[in-house]
Amino acid sequence: MQIELKENERIDDLELKGLKIIQNKDGFCFGMDSVLLSDFAKEIKPNKKILDMGTGTGILGILLCGKTEGTHITGIELQEQVAEMAQRSIKLNNLQDRFNIVCEDIKNLNKLYERGSFDSIVTNPPYKKQGTGKINEKDSKLISRHEITANLEDFILTASYLLKDQGNLYMVHRPERLSDILICLHKYKLEPKNLKLVYPNIQKEPNLILIKATKNAKPFLKIEKPLYVYNNNGEYTKEILEIYNK
Amino acid sequence: MQIELKENERIDDLELKGLKIIQNKDGFCFGMDSVLLSDFAKEIKPNKKILDMGTGTGILGILLCGKTEGTHITGIELQEQVAEMAQRSIKLNNLQDRFNIVCEDIKNLNKLYERGSFDSIVTNPPYKKQGTGKINEKDSKLISRHEITANLEDFILTASYLLKDQGNLYMVHRPERLSDILICLHKYKLEPKNLKLVYPNIQKEPNLILIKATKNAKPFLKIEKPLYVYNNNGEYTKEILEIYNK
Repeated sequence: MQIELKENERIDDLELKGLKIIQNKDGFCFGMDSVLLSDFAKEIKPNKKILDMGTGTGILGILLCGKTEGTHITGIELQEQVAEMAQRSIKLNNLQDRFNIVCEDIKNLNKLYERGSFDSIVTNPPYKKQGTGKINEKDSKLISRHEITANLEDFILTASYLLKDQGNLYMVHRPERLSDILICLHKYKLEPKNLKLVYPNIQKEPNLILIKATKNAKPFLKIEKPLYVYNNNGEYTKEILEIYNK
Repeated sequence: MQIELKENERIDDLELKGLKIIQNKDGFCFGMDSVLLSDFAKEIKPNKKILDMGTGTGILGILLCGKTEGTHITGIELQEQVAEMAQRSIKLNNLQDRFNIVCEDIKNLNKLYERGSFDSIVTNPPYKKQGTGKINEKDSKLISRHEITANLEDFILTASYLLKDQGNLYMVHRPERLSDILICLHKYKLEPKNLKLVYPNIQKEPNLILIKATKNAKPFLKIEKPLYVYNNNGEYTKEILEIYNK
């Protein structure tokens, strides 16, 4: 299929079932966090309705189309140009039947959808609290990385509203926000059930966390086996190679 | 020094500066959790006032006497016979000037001590929620392991009351209670600052967590390097041997 590329855009091969993605090299490009989150959420059963809050380039939804079967994903993206680029990536992969993009602020989703409209929600929200960290990036990157237009609580309260009873939220975030996240999940009746820490190697502090929370579930948190990215020789671990389908 | 041993009691060598402890082989005997917590809290500066909530045999206080300098520790123990045994261990180690035992319910401590009376608090509280797990143990073990006489919230609210501003709480607990702990710490203005996960080895789920929380501190949680107990050959890791002074 012929898809138009705009200035500074390129097509990257996801090396998963022939899937590809359009990215703008001056914008926010996907990282390992999206890949790890798609793998963490791959347990989602066939024919489920999934919401991706803050879909960006559409990377998470595209990977989930590859890693799950028959699911339907709705990706919410506030930035019009980014949403339009994600739409072209969906066409490029011929996924129009399984993945659609809605250009909207996640804070308005309770007006667009009824309570309990989704079976599962995935999200890779902005990591940095407003007012922390350097802010010298372009607007589009800024919105992807910092809590400018929506904060952690906006993401979590929206997820709670839109999830079915016993539906699951899958989120990737930074370790330093773990306490904020667990407190906020509790506030909105999302019970954390699984937590996976991602360590660069066995000697380092974790730099990512993956959390699964279930709406209205009973409390019992399982902290899973650790995931190490590199082994002692500086090569990707077996687990990472499997996630990347190598 | 001649110390009387009662029926079923024995003296164990702690292999740290000649320290010893009296334990009852039918009661709750200390495990690795107390040793790891004493090491996690060894940063406590000289001449500080420390409270140990639920001191049991006195193991944590005795180890802290060995790992810190000039500190004074007050150990709170509800069970009279256990408290009396801890007092004999203190005499056995000639630590009467640094470690005293108070036989009291932690829920009454706000009547015994003024707000902000302690610089640091350490605790190895009962791990199991009331109503969960098997309850077929003797009374004394039961109170040490299950939240029978005081629950997590009692421990945390008491710690918050008794700690000075910017004072630290050091706690060891089970991974499945992490969310309960962080929510409760937040409720009582104890900000989690450091979290260390203890893994039996690099392939397993963690089975203990060590948490440091600071009263009225700013939020930023550091999840530390993991601590592995055994290496791939089934031997203690270098870190564990160092903690045990081997």
